[in-house]
Amino acid sequence: MKLRPLNDRIIVKRIEASRTTASGIVIPDTASEKPVQGEVIAVGPGKTLDNGNLRVPAVKAGDRVLFSTYAGQTVKLDGEEYLVVREDEVLAIIEAAADLKKAA
Amino acid sequence: MKLRPLNDRIIVKRIEASRTTASGIVIPDTASEKPVQGEVIAVGPGKTLDNGNLRVPAVKAGDRVLFSTYAGQTVKLDGEEYLVVREDEVLAIIEAAADLKKAA
Amino acid sequence: MKLRPLNDRIIVKRIEASRTTASGIVIPDTASEKPVQGEVIAVGPGKTLDNGNLRVPAVKAGDRVLFSTYAGQTVKLDGEEYLVVREDEVLAIIEAAADLKKAA
Amino acid sequence: MKLRPLNDRIIVKRIEASRTTASGIVIPDTASEKPVQGEVIAVGPGKTLDNGNLRVPAVKAGDRVLFSTYAGQTVKLDGEEYLVVREDEVLAIIEAAADLKKAA
Amino acid sequence: MKLRPLNDRIIVKRIEASRTTASGIVIPDTASEKPVQGEVIAVGPGKTLDNGNLRVPAVKAGDRVLFSTYAGQTVKLDGEEYLVVREDEVLAIIEAAADLKKAA
Amino acid sequence: MKLRPLNDRIIVKRIEASRTTASGIVIPDTASEKPVQGEVIAVGPGKTLDNGNLRVPAVKAGDRVLFSTYAGQTVKLDGEEYLVVREDEVLAIIEAAADLKKAA
Amino acid sequence: MKLRPLNDRIIVKRIEASRTTASGIVIPDTASEKPVQGEVIAVGPGKTLDNGNLRVPAVKAGDRVLFSTYAGQTVKLDGEEYLVVREDEVLAIIEAAADLKKAA
Repeated sequence: MKLRPLNDRIIVKRIEASRTTASGIVIPDTASEKPVQGEVIAVGPGKTLDNGNLRVPAVKAGDRVLFSTYAGQTVKLDGEEYLVVREDEVLAIIEAAADLKKAA
Repeated sequence: MKLRPLNDRIIVKRIEASRTTASGIVIPDTASEKPVQGEVIAVGPGKTLDNGNLRVPAVKAGDRVLFSTYAGQTVKLDGEEYLVVREDEVLAIIEAAADLKKAA
Repeated sequence: MKLRPLNDRIIVKRIEASRTTASGIVIPDTASEKPVQGEVIAVGPGKTLDNGNLRVPAVKAGDRVLFSTYAGQTVKLDGEEYLVVREDEVLAIIEAAADLKKAA
Repeated sequence: MKLRPLNDRIIVKRIEASRTTASGIVIPDTASEKPVQGEVIAVGPGKTLDNGNLRVPAVKAGDRVLFSTYAGQTVKLDGEEYLVVREDEVLAIIEAAADLKKAA
Repeated sequence: MKLRPLNDRIIVKRIEASRTTASGIVIPDTASEKPVQGEVIAVGPGKTLDNGNLRVPAVKAGDRVLFSTYAGQTVKLDGEEYLVVREDEVLAIIEAAADLKKAA
Repeated sequence: MKLRPLNDRIIVKRIEASRTTASGIVIPDTASEKPVQGEVIAVGPGKTLDNGNLRVPAVKAGDRVLFSTYAGQTVKLDGEEYLVVREDEVLAIIEAAADLKKAA
Repeated sequence: MKLRPLNDRIIVKRIEASRTTASGIVIPDTASEKPVQGEVIAVGPGKTLDNGNLRVPAVKAGDRVLFSTYAGQTVKLDGEEYLVVREDEVLAIIEAAADLKKAA
């Protein structure tokens, strides 16, 4: 069983970034806007442009991506929680495992 | 008697997702935004693009789909309640029977 | 004497849906948003697209249609009350006489 | 002396619809939104589309038209009051003299 | 010295319409929205459409035009006050000298 | 060292217009919206249209231009203050040195 | 490990401009809107236009750029803080090392 996103939508599994500083202190979440990273699970076929062509998404399943906190909608499937975002809400692809911390 | 949707509209029959956890506890609905799943009953011919072409919908009757709670408008026909949504409000197609739970 | 709508506008005569349940109890109107059905009286030539072509409406005079309550503007002509809506405000065509009830 | 409207603008002379019922009772104006009818005095050359072509208006001088109350701007010329509306604010052409009453 | 407007902008010199009635009574200005007339002093080359072509303005220097009060921006040059409006804010060209009065 | 604006942006050096009347009285600034003039220092390559072509700006370095007070953003470089505006925020080119006064 | 921006997004490393005046006085930050400069770290492939073509960004990695304070979103990667902006939020490229001061 799986989710097949439509148009330019992308299914993402959130990855909780390490919130521990170099000295080992855990930083609590703040209520401010915080970018988030995740792994791409599934990618829609892309957005149909005004001329009828399809813009194929630049991300693919398995990519680690950076997006904004308020992007997308959270859904649960088989007990797992996913995020459905539009491709344009993805800020960047993270090209190697990283200790990405949310900005204060 | 049936509803024939226009343009990029889709008629959906809501499927109440199981709200019972693995341990058998029933989770009450919350007032927060909750994605919803349903079965597609009828699909419009598609949206007319600016160049005059039609964008044929990617969903078809019988598909099980995921959409947002606030998407569309509820109508009753012959005692049955349906939801009329635009195709772009469909987040994803669920490709097998699933125990999709609404995110808390 | 008749109304000839312009562009993608449609003249509709409202049909009060039966508000009586199977057991004969009359359900009073609520103040909430309620879809409405009607019969199409006249149809404009269609919307001019950005490329100059016309998108011919998918509804025709005599069709029974479903639309939203807040769609359009009410006008009176020769003592009869009509609704003027844009074609995109029509949700669906009802393909046979139906006991369409407004959703609670 | 006359007004030559630009683009898709239209000059309309309002026609006060009969506000007397069949039984002779005069209905006072309400503060609610009220469609209005008028006679077209002059028509602009039309709207320039994104592809550079002109969309010629579907109304012509002499037509009796139906429009919304809040459409357009009122101007006075030589003691006469006119309304300047965009063609898309015209709801319909009234094809014969009519006892059009404003909806309650 | 002169102002050369860019794009679809137009330089207008306001003409105070006669505010005296036929019987000689002067009507004071009201605070309500009031259309205004003026003489066109200079016209920009026109608006560049999405396809790269230019839409040449329909007004020319010397035309007497009707526009809305809140249209444009007032500038002073060499002690003279001008109005800079976009062509689409011009409602109509007044084809002969007129006793245009602002609507109450 | 210099600023090279992107797209349809323009770098302007403000010119304080004479605020002294013919009789020598200095008029203080008001808080109301006031157009402003300046000299163009640098011009971007232009805006990319939807069809992929570039719309080359109509202003060039050295032009004296008129713009609105609230247009653009102020920056300081090497102690000099500049304004970065979009070309469409320029109202007009002033074709000779002028005693442009801000409208009251 | 690095961030690969999507579409027309750009990764920027902020450069704190000198806030010391010629006479050595340090100017404190104000709460008002303040343009900011930075070095471009990575550039997306560009924005897909409506006709399906790509608009390649005019900035490249290593460029020193000027942007608005409220542009973009701040992210942290490996302890470094970056800004993700859209190319159109970049005001100008600074062509040599400069003592760019934020406007008061």
